[in-house]
Amino acid sequence: MSEIDNIKSFHDELTAWRRDLHAHPEMAYKEDRTSSFVAEKLRSWGIDVHTNLAKTGVVGTVRNGSGNRAVGLRADMDALPLQELNGFDHRSKHDGVMHACGHDGHTVMLLGAARHLAKHRDFDGTVHLIFQPAEEGGGGGKLMIEEGLFEKFPCDAVFGLHNLPGIPVGKFAVRSGPMLASSDKFEITVAGTGAHGAFPHQGVDPVPIAAEIIMALQGIVTRNIDPLQSSIISVTQINGGMAYNIIPNEVKMVGTTRAFSPAVRELIERRMGQVVEGICAAHNAKGTLKYIHGYPPTINSVEETDLAAQAAAKVVGMDNVLFDHPPSMAADDVAFMLNAKGGSHVLIGNGVGPGVGEGGCAVHNPNYDFNDKILTRKP
Amino acid sequence: MSEIDNIKSFHDELTAWRRDLHAHPEMAYKEDRTSSFVAEKLRSWGIDVHTNLAKTGVVGTVRNGSGNRAVGLRADMDALPLQELNGFDHRSKHDGVMHACGHDGHTVMLLGAARHLAKHRDFDGTVHLIFQPAEEGGGGGKLMIEEGLFEKFPCDAVFGLHNLPGIPVGKFAVRSGPMLASSDKFEITVAGTGAHGAFPHQGVDPVPIAAEIIMALQGIVTRNIDPLQSSIISVTQINGGMAYNIIPNEVKMVGTTRAFSPAVRELIERRMGQVVEGICAAHNAKGTLKYIHGYPPTINSVEETDLAAQAAAKVVGMDNVLFDHPPSMAADDVAFMLNAKGGSHVLIGNGVGPGVGEGGCAVHNPNYDFNDKILTRKP
Amino acid sequence: MSEIDNIKSFHDELTAWRRDLHAHPEMAYKEDRTSSFVAEKLRSWGIDVHTNLAKTGVVGTVRNGSGNRAVGLRADMDALPLQELNGFDHRSKHDGVMHACGHDGHTVMLLGAARHLAKHRDFDGTVHLIFQPAEEGGGGGKLMIEEGLFEKFPCDAVFGLHNLPGIPVGKFAVRSGPMLASSDKFEITVAGTGAHGAFPHQGVDPVPIAAEIIMALQGIVTRNIDPLQSSIISVTQINGGMAYNIIPNEVKMVGTTRAFSPAVRELIERRMGQVVEGICAAHNAKGTLKYIHGYPPTINSVEETDLAAQAAAKVVGMDNVLFDHPPSMAADDVAFMLNAKGGSHVLIGNGVGPGVGEGGCAVHNPNYDFNDKILTRKP
Amino acid sequence: MSEIDNIKSFHDELTAWRRDLHAHPEMAYKEDRTSSFVAEKLRSWGIDVHTNLAKTGVVGTVRNGSGNRAVGLRADMDALPLQELNGFDHRSKHDGVMHACGHDGHTVMLLGAARHLAKHRDFDGTVHLIFQPAEEGGGGGKLMIEEGLFEKFPCDAVFGLHNLPGIPVGKFAVRSGPMLASSDKFEITVAGTGAHGAFPHQGVDPVPIAAEIIMALQGIVTRNIDPLQSSIISVTQINGGMAYNIIPNEVKMVGTTRAFSPAVRELIERRMGQVVEGICAAHNAKGTLKYIHGYPPTINSVEETDLAAQAAAKVVGMDNVLFDHPPSMAADDVAFMLNAKGGSHVLIGNGVGPGVGEGGCAVHNPNYDFNDKILTRKP
Repeated sequence: MSEIDNIKSFHDELTAWRRDLHAHPEMAYKEDRTSSFVAEKLRSWGIDVHTNLAKTGVVGTVRNGSGNRAVGLRADMDALPLQELNGFDHRSKHDGVMHACGHDGHTVMLLGAARHLAKHRDFDGTVHLIFQPAEEGGGGGKLMIEEGLFEKFPCDAVFGLHNLPGIPVGKFAVRSGPMLASSDKFEITVAGTGAHGAFPHQGVDPVPIAAEIIMALQGIVTRNIDPLQSSIISVTQINGGMAYNIIPNEVKMVGTTRAFSPAVRELIERRMGQVVEGICAAHNAKGTLKYIHGYPPTINSVEETDLAAQAAAKVVGMDNVLFDHPPSMAADDVAFMLNAKGGSHVLIGNGVGPGVGEGGCAVHNPNYDFNDKILTRKP
Repeated sequence: MSEIDNIKSFHDELTAWRRDLHAHPEMAYKEDRTSSFVAEKLRSWGIDVHTNLAKTGVVGTVRNGSGNRAVGLRADMDALPLQELNGFDHRSKHDGVMHACGHDGHTVMLLGAARHLAKHRDFDGTVHLIFQPAEEGGGGGKLMIEEGLFEKFPCDAVFGLHNLPGIPVGKFAVRSGPMLASSDKFEITVAGTGAHGAFPHQGVDPVPIAAEIIMALQGIVTRNIDPLQSSIISVTQINGGMAYNIIPNEVKMVGTTRAFSPAVRELIERRMGQVVEGICAAHNAKGTLKYIHGYPPTINSVEETDLAAQAAAKVVGMDNVLFDHPPSMAADDVAFMLNAKGGSHVLIGNGVGPGVGEGGCAVHNPNYDFNDKILTRKP
Repeated sequence: MSEIDNIKSFHDELTAWRRDLHAHPEMAYKEDRTSSFVAEKLRSWGIDVHTNLAKTGVVGTVRNGSGNRAVGLRADMDALPLQELNGFDHRSKHDGVMHACGHDGHTVMLLGAARHLAKHRDFDGTVHLIFQPAEEGGGGGKLMIEEGLFEKFPCDAVFGLHNLPGIPVGKFAVRSGPMLASSDKFEITVAGTGAHGAFPHQGVDPVPIAAEIIMALQGIVTRNIDPLQSSIISVTQINGGMAYNIIPNEVKMVGTTRAFSPAVRELIERRMGQVVEGICAAHNAKGTLKYIHGYPPTINSVEETDLAAQAAAKVVGMDNVLFDHPPSMAADDVAFMLNAKGGSHVLIGNGVGPGVGEGGCAVHNPNYDFNDKILTRKP
Repeated sequence: MSEIDNIKSFHDELTAWRRDLHAHPEMAYKEDRTSSFVAEKLRSWGIDVHTNLAKTGVVGTVRNGSGNRAVGLRADMDALPLQELNGFDHRSKHDGVMHACGHDGHTVMLLGAARHLAKHRDFDGTVHLIFQPAEEGGGGGKLMIEEGLFEKFPCDAVFGLHNLPGIPVGKFAVRSGPMLASSDKFEITVAGTGAHGAFPHQGVDPVPIAAEIIMALQGIVTRNIDPLQSSIISVTQINGGMAYNIIPNEVKMVGTTRAFSPAVRELIERRMGQVVEGICAAHNAKGTLKYIHGYPPTINSVEETDLAAQAAAKVVGMDNVLFDHPPSMAADDVAFMLNAKGGSHVLIGNGVGPGVGEGGCAVHNPNYDFNDKILTRKP
């Protein structure tokens, strides 16, 4: 039985695991069942297992030969706060929680890889199998690093794999350079001085000041950032005022920014600070910008992307590797690991069909499902 | 005993009534105790009484001689949703409800006038004593008119009296023309199309559109309205968005407008409609303006203001009548009655001192109290 | 012959003088012919004459009795840079220069008064007859004061008289308090850094910064100034850029402000400075506000306005004195004299009819003419 | 002597020609001397020459073998309205005109290619040598097409070559897809109604309306266009107003837009129209957008770019071909030809050094010079 045939033989088993995880989704840092399942499986194959990194994170390590090169393979385990609308048997058993981004599939794919590597040892060096919690906004990858991931498990590079609806089954998409954007959050408070709506001059009305800030923020994107560099500043929440005839004390705005380069990201933060401060100063108000760093840009290094593309080509053929796949303004926690060690985040086609099991439904949609066909090479 | 001495003799009694009302404040359209008290007193003096006009409104009618001229004297009875901070004995017995605008005093002053008129009959014609509910935003005066106030009780003119902290006891302030502003409410909805914060182009972001509208509304006041005409457009509430990374479907704004003339008021409404429609059209959003007419401007007619000034001068001397008192952008429900019949809304000094009983504390303040010294000519 | 009949007898002569001045209009500080004419006439009546104050200004002084009270009567002499369109015989003989504001009439009216006073001496004290140059933006009144007008000719009060089309012949209009607005000029420069239109991020684009400033200036009027106080900030000129594909280095804006009170005027200047500085700081541009004080508000003092009204009533009857005439956002140089000494600036009806000689055509219009009927009481 | 050696032997001659053209720069559509020089040289090598296409345009045609494939090689001939600051002998002899973009070099390089092709005939098919006028904003390429370029000289693809300072001598840079941006011009007129600066309500002030439009245009880029798609809207000129106290009738704005895709370009034009119309409608003004199409995006087709890269690699080696060179928001007239026929616009390194003859000085700079070292393979 060839190596590949061997992998194929896992398919039914992997599918069962994946559906089990799908039926039991767990939110960020609460992936206890998933984490235990992962650890147990890894141990069952004789793999060294380290648990409780970043609360529910798991790292398994497989070594072979005398090579001193080490890579990390990373998967995410957490689910989303969404009510699943699918009707199939393996639908979520937990109200309001759903594997709507395919992390159930990512986890099982990495388990499949782990089993293969543990059994066949057809490599020279060290592979760290990194199962991270809390990708969906929780920063589980960042926390693993902060808790010593790469000190405990030194890696020369890290590889991630994420499914993508809209790309056919059997294809991979790769890209060197920026693949996903940074995603930061900001909170702006414009503190004026309330007054009766009939006596505006007795206060400092924060409402038009907030409006000016919103308008001025557009100019950061259009005037201050190189138009060849994609960037976004979205004010998504604005709230102020309690009564129709009372000018409020303050207006609060919340939003998100996106960029593909650390330089643009820093420029956005710096310019936002100037805009908030300057415009509030213009009006005797006090402006506060709280800029909260979320995920950095996910930037694939050239060599590791080539390596990943070659590995993918071995499985699906070079014709099925899509090079120069366009980046997306979405963000992923894997960025912290790639930032730290280099590596590549690769996309795998989840399918294009609209039907159940065809994989074309968008992620974060209540009708999404990971496509089991891609758990292994087509069995 | 002279006529005036006679009025003076009421003072202790009126003070007791006023403090009793102060201790038992009642909110708009719930002035049941107050209303009953008023009706009972009026009846006790042989005055014809009509109750339940605009729920708790009361009208008493006194006639004398053969004259066919009729005037309305109007007082307001309702309290405010405010927690009183005064410590004196007659403080509010109802948590969160307070006579913080002196309507208790207005009611008792009108009772005092009723008693005098009923007893002395020193006039020729008809006096309707109008005790209205719900001045504080409830439109009690408007509702009385809608329920037939002036059909049942035809008036040639209506006179109102309101206390004003900051003017000394013993002084009246009058003004012909605009005395108080109109007060309208508006609700603007900017309906765009929500999108993920990372994909703004997939939606229509209502946030910057709302900001543009706020800025453009300023221009109505600065560019479209005669600068000699006072006007206000205050956006006092703005709300939109539920998550930091989701561009919302819509932003809602609420606010108030003020004007001293019907023409300016109409111009504001018309221009606001154009601004909301035009700017939303510019951005493929759907804008809705709900413009809710509140109180019209309170405009004192010249003849009745002269008459009121002469009447005031009889009591306090011409030197104590302040002519050409500046108008205020505040509003009063009495406007509906003056609009319908002509008349004058006169201010009476509540005192200037900061201490308890000195009357200088501003209305709508939890430490305010009506000054009993002004219930009659200084006793 | 009564005093009044005597004045009437001047009428034909005054009319001839007025038409002569109208035919020979002279621009600010170039009123040489007018000034000589005035001085000669004054001297011919034995009046002490002082010339060359503020270049072409003339002051004549008449004294009588032992009274030590002194008043100034002020008229303006300059014409406007306008091409007259009237066809009557006394039309302007100077191309592009026209007495389109009636200063010809003002000058002659004051000459008429001078002749009467010099001849009849029916007063006790001192009257200074002040003929000022350069009212139309030139600040002739200010310059006279700077050159010692009131040191040389001490006045207890100053009175001005200005014709007003739209008010019937035979009527005066008076107002205590603010009568005309301040008129200041401002120049704002937003200095950014030019760049190619295809590389905006390499510069600091002053265009949207200027736009933000324009929007923010509206908020000074709508949010910072008491709505009972009239005010105007008009950006009337904006210029920037030389080529369609080059972002300019700077944008310049020019405009005017108006206010009726020194406090509002100061608030406007201060707030404009903050707005320009704050918004430019928000965008790394350099903003400069040059705020040039023009004319202050013309504020009539109460006592002198009463006195003027009584004087007017003596001539036309109390019924023809319009009290509380609305103020205007226009400005007049007489403000400097009233500011310095108190006094009153009074309006005289120039007539309402549209025809030639009927006086209803607006000032600064090429078809305007001063109405000779008002040079004296109707003869 | 090998083919390449043969080319090298041209070098001195080509250098002489290039410097002669540099010394005699000619503006758009006035390239008479240049055009004659080109035609004469082509004819001297036995090449069929067609002149006066787009006024001064020249096309030479070389055929060989029986192949029916035809390609166009395109160079631009015009100079810029710039005063040269270089001091070398071949500096411009024409005041205020300068070859500051290297079109002198492009013309000579294409002559060199023509000579080689005519002499060696080492190809099978047809080569059209296209020398176009007026690349710098004049649309010479567009005019050649309109005058029948591709009907007269059918091409299967067109290739352009442009020098780029900052890339070392001996290197080529290529890119599939968008290489340069579209460049359009727009003119916006906001027609309001003038008024005196003291009476803004009597007019429709176009100044704040223009400001609103400027702000709203930013939102097209930030909210309506996919952030992965580069785009620019630059308002570069704004003019309105003649006097500090007169609100003007209108404000005019001029600017440029840039995009890499026809869809984004269309979106910009459509959205600009909506913004101008909607905001003017909001304020009773009349807005006019004149959107003038300039150059479309320069989009390199994949096959022809590969072909060009291989050709370049033959000369300089694959290591000296820079793939995936970043695009630029600048624009080039070559876009019309690539749009019509497909093809590729390739960049050739002009050198990096700051000194004279080192080629590092930016184009459109008065110290720029084309680097003669790149006229042939290093001789």
